[in-house]
Amino acid sequence: QSVTIWGIVDQGLVKMNDGASIAANSGAGLRNETVVKPAWQNRLGFRRSEDLGDGLAAFFDIEHRFSADDGVAATPFWTGRSVVGLRSPKWGTLTLGRDYNPAFYPSVALDPWAWNTVGQMGLATTWARYAGNDGGPRNNNMIQWRTPDFSGLTVLTMVALGENATNRGNAVGANVVYSKGPIYAAAAVDRAKNVAAGKPEAKMWLLGGAYDFGVVRPRVLIAQSTSFAGVDTKSAMVGASVPIGLGRVLLGWSKINPDGANNDSTKWGLGFHYDMSKRTMLYADVGSAKTDRQSRSNGYDVGIKHSF
Amino acid sequence: QSVTIWGIVDQGLVKMNDGASIAANSGAGLRNETVVKPAWQNRLGFRRSEDLGDGLAAFFDIEHRFSADDGVAATPFWTGRSVVGLRSPKWGTLTLGRDYNPAFYPSVALDPWAWNTVGQMGLATTWARYAGNDGGPRNNNMIQWRTPDFSGLTVLTMVALGENATNRGNAVGANVVYSKGPIYAAAAVDRAKNVAAGKPEAKMWLLGGAYDFGVVRPRVLIAQSTSFAGVDTKSAMVGASVPIGLGRVLLGWSKINPDGANNDSTKWGLGFHYDMSKRTMLYADVGSAKTDRQSRSNGYDVGIKHSF
Amino acid sequence: QSVTIWGIVDQGLVKMNDGASIAANSGAGLRNETVVKPAWQNRLGFRRSEDLGDGLAAFFDIEHRFSADDGVAATPFWTGRSVVGLRSPKWGTLTLGRDYNPAFYPSVALDPWAWNTVGQMGLATTWARYAGNDGGPRNNNMIQWRTPDFSGLTVLTMVALGENATNRGNAVGANVVYSKGPIYAAAAVDRAKNVAAGKPEAKMWLLGGAYDFGVVRPRVLIAQSTSFAGVDTKSAMVGASVPIGLGRVLLGWSKINPDGANNDSTKWGLGFHYDMSKRTMLYADVGSAKTDRQSRSNGYDVGIKHSF
Repeated sequence: QSVTIWGIVDQGLVKMNDGASIAANSGAGLRNETVVKPAWQNRLGFRRSEDLGDGLAAFFDIEHRFSADDGVAATPFWTGRSVVGLRSPKWGTLTLGRDYNPAFYPSVALDPWAWNTVGQMGLATTWARYAGNDGGPRNNNMIQWRTPDFSGLTVLTMVALGENATNRGNAVGANVVYSKGPIYAAAAVDRAKNVAAGKPEAKMWLLGGAYDFGVVRPRVLIAQSTSFAGVDTKSAMVGASVPIGLGRVLLGWSKINPDGANNDSTKWGLGFHYDMSKRTMLYADVGSAKTDRQSRSNGYDVGIKHSF
Repeated sequence: QSVTIWGIVDQGLVKMNDGASIAANSGAGLRNETVVKPAWQNRLGFRRSEDLGDGLAAFFDIEHRFSADDGVAATPFWTGRSVVGLRSPKWGTLTLGRDYNPAFYPSVALDPWAWNTVGQMGLATTWARYAGNDGGPRNNNMIQWRTPDFSGLTVLTMVALGENATNRGNAVGANVVYSKGPIYAAAAVDRAKNVAAGKPEAKMWLLGGAYDFGVVRPRVLIAQSTSFAGVDTKSAMVGASVPIGLGRVLLGWSKINPDGANNDSTKWGLGFHYDMSKRTMLYADVGSAKTDRQSRSNGYDVGIKHSF
Repeated sequence: QSVTIWGIVDQGLVKMNDGASIAANSGAGLRNETVVKPAWQNRLGFRRSEDLGDGLAAFFDIEHRFSADDGVAATPFWTGRSVVGLRSPKWGTLTLGRDYNPAFYPSVALDPWAWNTVGQMGLATTWARYAGNDGGPRNNNMIQWRTPDFSGLTVLTMVALGENATNRGNAVGANVVYSKGPIYAAAAVDRAKNVAAGKPEAKMWLLGGAYDFGVVRPRVLIAQSTSFAGVDTKSAMVGASVPIGLGRVLLGWSKINPDGANNDSTKWGLGFHYDMSKRTMLYADVGSAKTDRQSRSNGYDVGIKHSF
C-alpha cells in the first residue's frame, strides 16, 4: 500500500504578557508565564492518491489536530481536513467533505508566518477578523472545485451546504491565484449564512500579492469583512521574508480598522526560522499588538518543529 | 514492519424527504435538503498479522469510524472493531475484544448494499429491527471463535461478557455459513440480556441464501426478533445484484411486520455502483420506505467512495 | 517515509473479587465477575527519527491509549506521550511535550510486571502511592533532558511548567540510573506543586536495584512520598523474574505503610508470561492484596498480548 502518514509535532517555550490588545497569538491569557506550547498546531494526517489512468487520480486526505503539550485532541477530531476527491490535469480537482475555504490559501501564502507562531499576522489581520460559520478557515459539507492550472492561473470555488436549522445555505467562496516565477497575486471572497444570527450574512474579501526579488520577498494584503452582527472591518498587512543562509528572517506589520472610533489595532511581528534539515526547524518569534485604549500585548516564542 | 493502514473515505450528495416512515437510511430527518454525507461510514483501521509457525498466526485489528463531512469521530472512537486474536487453519480463529455479532456477516453478505447507502435493506429489514445491547451489530467484551473452513462450511460463535449492573451475561450469538461456488446459505442467532430493561432478554434469528447465476445474483432473507420490550417483529427481504460492465445494478425489496395491526413497513431500493478502479467507486441509489398510516420516506444519494 | 506505527493490543479474561483492600489492579470493583479486559493498556503510537548529521537526530513520538474491550479512547487522546526532541550521543536527549516523569523508568524496570496485569506491584507500591499532578506517571508541559550514557550511567531531569491558576511551577523530577552487564541500580525524585490544594507540594523519592544471575533476576525497591494532603507513606518491594524456556515466572511482594496506625497494606503477585514470538505473548497472573482491617482483594488474569 501507499498510505502516506504525515504531520507536524512542534513544541516550544511561549511567553505572553497580560496585555488586553488583540491576541498576539492563541496563547493569549497566559498571564506573564513561560509555558510549553506548539506554535504550529500539531497534526497527524493520512492521505493517498490512486492513479485511475489518463492522468485522472482519486485521493483522500484526513488531518487530525492535537496539542503535544498536554496530549489533547482537537474537536472535531479531524479538524484539519477530511476529504475525498478526483484530480485531473484536464478537468481540475473536485473535493467533497470538511475543507479549507478558498480564501485561506492566499492568506497563508502572504502572511510571512502562514498563520503560525506569535509573530503571525493571522486571521485577525489577513481576513479582517472574519470567521465564517466554523469560527475558523474551514467549512463542513463542502463541495470544492479547483480549475486546472492555466499558465500559473487557477480558480478555486466552493459551496458548503447548510445542514441544520441555523445555517441553511451555509457558505460560498472563491479565490483567483496567479503564481508564476517571482510573482504571486491573489484575490478571494467568502460569504456565510446563519439564519439564527441577528444579521443573517457575513462576508469578506481580500486582495494581495508578493514578488520574490531573491534577497527579499515583500508581500501586501488588504481585506474587508462584514460580521454576522453587521460590523464592517478593514485590514491591511505588509510583510517580507529575507533568506539568510539556511534560515529566513520574517517581518510583518498590519492594521485593523473596525467600524467606530478609537478601536483600531496594529500588530508587528519579527521572526527567525532556521532549517536544521528539510523536516526539522528551529524558530524564534516576537509579536506585539496594540489596540486603541488597551494595554499592549506582547508575545515571544522559541522552539523546534518537526514535520513528517 | 508491516502494519496495514486501511479505511474508507466516501462523500456524496444525499437528499431525504421529510417522510415519517422507517428511515430510508441514517440521513433521516434532513428535511428535504441536499447535504454532503457519507453513504458508507468513513473508517480508518490498523491491522497486522504475525506468522507464529505451523500456520498459526497472531493478529490485531482496530477500526475507527468518523464522518468526513464534518470531521467528527464516532463514540467510542474505535467503534468499528478492536480485537486481538489467534488464527490457524487447523483450529480456527479466536478473537477477543469489541467485535461484530456473528449475525452481522450473513446480513451484509445478503443485503445487496451491505447495510450502506440510502438503498440499503439494512438492520431494520435484515435483522427485524433487532439492536442487541450495543444499539447496533456489535458487542463489547466479546470472545469469538470461528471454526476452520470445512469444504465451505464455517460456524462462528461468540459470548459477550456482561460488565456492569445492567447487562450481566450480556450476549451470545452464532452463525452457520455455507459458501461454495455459486451457493451462499446462512443462518444466525443472537440473544442479549439487559437486567435493567422491562423484559430482560432480546433475541433474533435469521435465515437466508443467494445463488450466483453469473448474470444475476438473487438473494432472500427472513428474520424474526423479540425486543427488550417484548415486541415480536418479522421481516423478509428479496434482492439481487446484476453485473453490468464495470458496475452493477442493485435491487432490493423488504417488509417488516411487528406485532399489532396497521404498523407494517415496506422498503425498496435501487442502485447503480460503478468501479472506476479496484479502490474507487461511484454510486447512485434510491430508497423508498412506507409504514402503514405514515407518509412515505424517500432518499437519494450520489457520490464517490475511496477504499484504501 | 519512515514513520513507525507501533502499539499493543492485549485482551484477556480478568476476575477480581470484591475485596476492599488496595486494588490488585485497575480492574477493582468488578465484583466477582469474569470480564474481558486488557492487562496492558492498549496503545497505538507513531514515531520517527530523522538523522541531522554528526549523530544528531530529531524525533517525535505520540502515543494513544485505548481499551480494546469496548473501543473507548483514553482522555486525553494522546495520553501515553506526545513529544518532539533532539538526540545526540554527545549532548544527550532533549524532549518537549507531555512525557513520563523520570521516576517512572526505574519503577517499571524493577517491578517484575512493569506496572501491568493484576500481579503488578504498580504505582501504589513502587511510588508509595504518589500521584503527582497528573494522577499518574506523567506531566504536561514538560522539558526533559537525558545525559549521554557515561559507561552505563545516565541522569534524566525534567521540569514541567505550570499553566493554570492551580499548578504554578507544576513539577520537577530526576533519576540516576546505572545499568551495565548484570547490574541495574537507580534512584529518583519527583515533586509537584498545586497551589489550590491544602498543602501546596507533594513529593516522592525511590531507590532500587536488580542483579541478573541468569537463572534469576531479583529486585528490591524502597520509596517514600508526601501527598498534597500532607500524608507520608513508605513502601518497599522485593521481586524476581525467573526465565523458564520461552517464558518467565514473575514473583513480587510489597508493603505500604502510610502515616497512622492499622492502615498498612501488603500485596503479593505471581505470574507466568510465555513468548509465542518476539511480538506475541500469553500471560497468566495472580495478585492478592490485604489492607489492615479490610477484606482481602484477589485478582486473576489470563490473556494474549500482541505488540506491533
